Amino acid sequence: MIEDNDYGRRRVVIETVSPQVDGGRFAIKRVAGEKVAVRARIFADGHDVLGAMVKFRAAGEAVWQESPLQLLGNDWWQGEFRVPPLGRCQYTIAAWIDPFATWQRDLRKRLDAGQDVTVELQIGADLVRARLEGVSAEDRQQVTPLLDALADASDPARQTAAAVSEELGQWMFQHAERRFAVELDRPLDVIVDRPQARFSTWYEMFPRSCAAEPGRHGTLKDCEARLPYVAEMGFDVLYLPPIHPVGRSYRKGKNNAVMPAPEDVGCPWAIGAEEGGHKAVHPNLGTLEDFRRLVARAAEYGIEIALDIAFQCSPDHPYLRQHPEWFRRRPDGTIQYAENPPKKYEDIYPFNFECDDWKNLWQELKSIFIFWAEQGVRIFRVDNPHTKAFAFWEWLITEVKATYPDALFLAEAFTRPAVMYRLAKLGFTQSYTYFTWRNTKAELTEYFTELTRTPVREFFRANLWPNTPDILNEYLQFGGRAAFMARYVLAATLGANCGIYGPPFELCVAQPLAPGSEEYLNSEKYEIRHWPLEAPESLRGFIARVNRIRRENPALQADDGLAFHPVDNPQLICYSKQTEDHANVIVTAVNLDPHHTQWGWVELPLDELGIDAEHPYQAHDLLGDGRYIWNGPRNYVELDPGVCPAQVFRMRRRVRSESQFEYFL
Amino acid sequence: MIEDNDYGRRRVVIETVSPQVDGGRFAIKRVAGEKVAVRARIFADGHDVLGAMVKFRAAGEAVWQESPLQLLGNDWWQGEFRVPPLGRCQYTIAAWIDPFATWQRDLRKRLDAGQDVTVELQIGADLVRARLEGVSAEDRQQVTPLLDALADASDPARQTAAAVSEELGQWMFQHAERRFAVELDRPLDVIVDRPQARFSTWYEMFPRSCAAEPGRHGTLKDCEARLPYVAEMGFDVLYLPPIHPVGRSYRKGKNNAVMPAPEDVGCPWAIGAEEGGHKAVHPNLGTLEDFRRLVARAAEYGIEIALDIAFQCSPDHPYLRQHPEWFRRRPDGTIQYAENPPKKYEDIYPFNFECDDWKNLWQELKSIFIFWAEQGVRIFRVDNPHTKAFAFWEWLITEVKATYPDALFLAEAFTRPAVMYRLAKLGFTQSYTYFTWRNTKAELTEYFTELTRTPVREFFRANLWPNTPDILNEYLQFGGRAAFMARYVLAATLGANCGIYGPPFELCVAQPLAPGSEEYLNSEKYEIRHWPLEAPESLRGFIARVNRIRRENPALQADDGLAFHPVDNPQLICYSKQTEDHANVIVTAVNLDPHHTQWGWVELPLDELGIDAEHPYQAHDLLGDGRYIWNGPRNYVELDPGVCPAQVFRMRRRVRSESQFEYFL
Repeated sequence: MIEDNDYGRRRVVIETVSPQVDGGRFAIKRVAGEKVAVRARIFADGHDVLGAMVKFRAAGEAVWQESPLQLLGNDWWQGEFRVPPLGRCQYTIAAWIDPFATWQRDLRKRLDAGQDVTVELQIGADLVRARLEGVSAEDRQQVTPLLDALADASDPARQTAAAVSEELGQWMFQHAERRFAVELDRPLDVIVDRPQARFSTWYEMFPRSCAAEPGRHGTLKDCEARLPYVAEMGFDVLYLPPIHPVGRSYRKGKNNAVMPAPEDVGCPWAIGAEEGGHKAVHPNLGTLEDFRRLVARAAEYGIEIALDIAFQCSPDHPYLRQHPEWFRRRPDGTIQYAENPPKKYEDIYPFNFECDDWKNLWQELKSIFIFWAEQGVRIFRVDNPHTKAFAFWEWLITEVKATYPDALFLAEAFTRPAVMYRLAKLGFTQSYTYFTWRNTKAELTEYFTELTRTPVREFFRANLWPNTPDILNEYLQFGGRAAFMARYVLAATLGANCGIYGPPFELCVAQPLAPGSEEYLNSEKYEIRHWPLEAPESLRGFIARVNRIRRENPALQADDGLAFHPVDNPQLICYSKQTEDHANVIVTAVNLDPHHTQWGWVELPLDELGIDAEHPYQAHDLLGDGRYIWNGPRNYVELDPGVCPAQVFRMRRRVRSESQFEYFL
Repeated sequence: MIEDNDYGRRRVVIETVSPQVDGGRFAIKRVAGEKVAVRARIFADGHDVLGAMVKFRAAGEAVWQESPLQLLGNDWWQGEFRVPPLGRCQYTIAAWIDPFATWQRDLRKRLDAGQDVTVELQIGADLVRARLEGVSAEDRQQVTPLLDALADASDPARQTAAAVSEELGQWMFQHAERRFAVELDRPLDVIVDRPQARFSTWYEMFPRSCAAEPGRHGTLKDCEARLPYVAEMGFDVLYLPPIHPVGRSYRKGKNNAVMPAPEDVGCPWAIGAEEGGHKAVHPNLGTLEDFRRLVARAAEYGIEIALDIAFQCSPDHPYLRQHPEWFRRRPDGTIQYAENPPKKYEDIYPFNFECDDWKNLWQELKSIFIFWAEQGVRIFRVDNPHTKAFAFWEWLITEVKATYPDALFLAEAFTRPAVMYRLAKLGFTQSYTYFTWRNTKAELTEYFTELTRTPVREFFRANLWPNTPDILNEYLQFGGRAAFMARYVLAATLGANCGIYGPPFELCVAQPLAPGSEEYLNSEKYEIRHWPLEAPESLRGFIARVNRIRRENPALQADDGLAFHPVDNPQLICYSKQTEDHANVIVTAVNLDPHHTQWGWVELPLDELGIDAEHPYQAHDLLGDGRYIWNGPRNYVELDPGVCPAQVFRMRRRVRSESQFEYFL
């Protein structure tokens, strides 16, 4: 340290920089056009004035852009920059002692105290002269009159005016001596995704259940026919469970029976058969060309197809013959199937990520993503990533994004929090959450406060699902139609990313495999179902309305602005989201009791919502289309689950038109 | 990454390691014999059992010692190690997948489920065999019978008994394959000080005011005569303001007057004159030999002499002639004096830490510490370290400790929190605090919770002073004798390190220079004072009693165990400290109102204090010697400031002697 000739003269310290993840080990996440608000504690010994900049550049750029940081007080500095449209970018902070700003500050005090500043003015002129070297002719021209005035002792008034001028201060800041500036030890990374990373509405559906008539194996063409139905409900991502050939050995029967009937179709996650593996389409579903056409047709409806990437093999997968070295071998010569002792999953073979040939395994797995990206897929729902090596995911996501920076990855990891957060840090764009099991007001408040009000927000993007083919929560089993409505409103307004597994969701299918189980009875995981889409109890119209509200209200398209508000009834939950400029303020109230009408007084922080507490304002329920005139922070809500268990209010302020007509905007 | 052949196979992650300071940039602090309780989140993909160790070694040792970490749950692991007696040490964590422990866990489940485990037992035997290579003959001998039993299919009962045995598990843990183990990116540092770093009681006194008779300049010999007085009060550090020659140019007069009288003695912090600088003793105080004798005599009383190191020069300091390059020069040829515009301190010249010759400046300043260390000084109170370069202190403290690892440094920085904390991180052993300005219950509770219950505790050791020559707080100015008593009890029981500036403190000197000022009237900083040590109102007996309580109760010799407890009176504050084993539990109650008797109900968390809530216990007030039988968590206290504004209870549990006699221990 002391060997470095400037070491002892770098007097500034930069501490407690945010946002960052694990000391810069991982990137923070943003989408195109978002800002990064940078904060740090910056200080030096003594009382000198400091200068500080946030520096940022897109990956591959050599030159940094800069934006000044402002001192907030107590050594906290703050600034911001806008991220580039897509890909990676970096940022760092530079800070330095600013002798000229120090001199100007002190000079003003000396002048106020009426002191003789003759020598001080000479010092100031010297500071300016020292910065002339290496400056462009234009810049030099700009400062010359100021320096001349500063150095001209014959006109003291002009001299001091130049000395304390903002213009000279600005010029000196822009040309500051930064030889002893400090920067962060290493730049911090930002992953910039396209806006869909932050705002997306998913619909999961089994293609083989999409046949128009019962009893037939659905096809990708049937999926095409289903697109208008999905689009009408307002979904923009259509996620298909694995579409690959399904294994025959140890195939599971209906309701996960160990002995299948001959006509049983097996589980789509038992991937691979004679017909092919992870890069093949199940012959009963159609061809690769059918798939590409589905992708194209979906795009016409504003829908992206998301594929399920499940890295595991059925016993019939070609990999088992081609690459036995990628699997664990037992002393009896057999290959090790999946287990959770004492349970055995003999229809599934996991890859051995500790195998000697791990590099080739990684490359092959990557080629699966690339293959489907080449077919037009940019959204991947990754099955059980927490049972594959962490290092693999970090490498894989970086590699795929190097070619397809618009690729999005949803981590399907329902496991311990540290593991779920780690996967998000490693690069997964979105993550499944514990939402499904958070049903009370206290649970929801605590969990979503953690996700949106702590550093977790910098790397973990929640995607909220009230149900999945694996999870039919007790709340839905017993809550009836109102429970499905409430849970969808919660998912769609708490989370900018959300999704449902349909048609069971919109049809309010609620029967579990067995009491106490979260498995569906007659689950589509093991058999083909035919769904009565036109059933009168279907929530398709309700869901369409909720999704339209999401599309029309930017407040619901991000999770940053989420705030919970008190209600004097534990069955009622109330929260808001808003845009930074308060232009769009959405307040949602949900009755968590699916059986009884609940009412209570909601208390809103009007200041924080940008609402004038002195005048009435309108709470416009975008769900029921009721319009209520509210006054002050405390207002009454009453929700009958038999009608609708939620209200989604757009807050409208009173404005007066030129013709003095008053209305709410 | 992927180029590394093992990279993809290192599957374990270590996160959120504590204790550490700023991601390992700075060392944590401990004293001899203390433990470091290490916590981290450690996990891998999948469901394998992990093994984890904390590794530690003293600086300079090549070999790590190890101690296993235990899984607490939710991926949190915990362990501990004891630090070496003095100097630096390092620690890190190693963690790995443990296939044998995984196998044992799964085997037990398989056996419970009555499954055929023939192949599993072969796998287990293979795992053991794989660990035999490179193992000592003795270790091999130990495992051979177990392996033989495990491999012997002819006796299945013996086979499974060996398979699931703890003994085999232990052996395999000790000989675990750690090829793919992960460790922290870099080891974390611990600075280990002698116990005085954590527990010390300081007395500050001006040597020149120590003459037995008024009107004479006190000497170091007079200080010797004062030692019994200081020792009787129970102090173990005697801190002397600068003892060097005092400058004559621009000398300050009494009460900081700009024009001194001829007989004025100046300010000891205006260091340097013809007679010498920072390595000289003021001729009026005596000689270097006198100083060395004072150090030796003090040691006989169990007192260490602490010196004030103030890096600044009077205009007469030899450095100004010898090393003008270490100071800032003005365009008029003069050297820049200290300023806080518009205020000028023309009697003081600061060093220029940005000068070209900074390396020689650093070396010279270091030589001052070394010089006084050679005279036997090991405690340095550093004046205004926050106005010297941070990098200098980190280097200096490391350098001095390389030769004198028992050296202690107290940072006298009364400035913004980030700066004070930074100095502590850089290596200062102890720090002055905001204690002086924290007088209400809320202020004290918040501040000491921050210091002792947050990561601040790992690097910042508070030293609490109710007064200093610069600070006579308003509370003391208006509170009378009870205020001095209360503030000393607070300092001495909230902080294991504390000190007073005497004799003004024990004599309850309370008159400020002016209303609203915290300066003393007729401050010793500018004149010699003669103090009536035998005054009847002196608190010397009270202070002696408090300090004896500190010496006799280990709970008060550390700050870790501090906890605040509710009292239903805002003027009463109550808190406890205890040893880890609950053997010594001290509960302090202080009346913060120096004018009125206050009473209230204290509520103690008996469980946390190791007190049996079912039986009465004794609260023994070590200050007043009252003994109270308390029952349950809520008990009454009443404090009359006219008598004593505080009680310091030692909690005593009821025990029964062999002869069935009950008493409180």
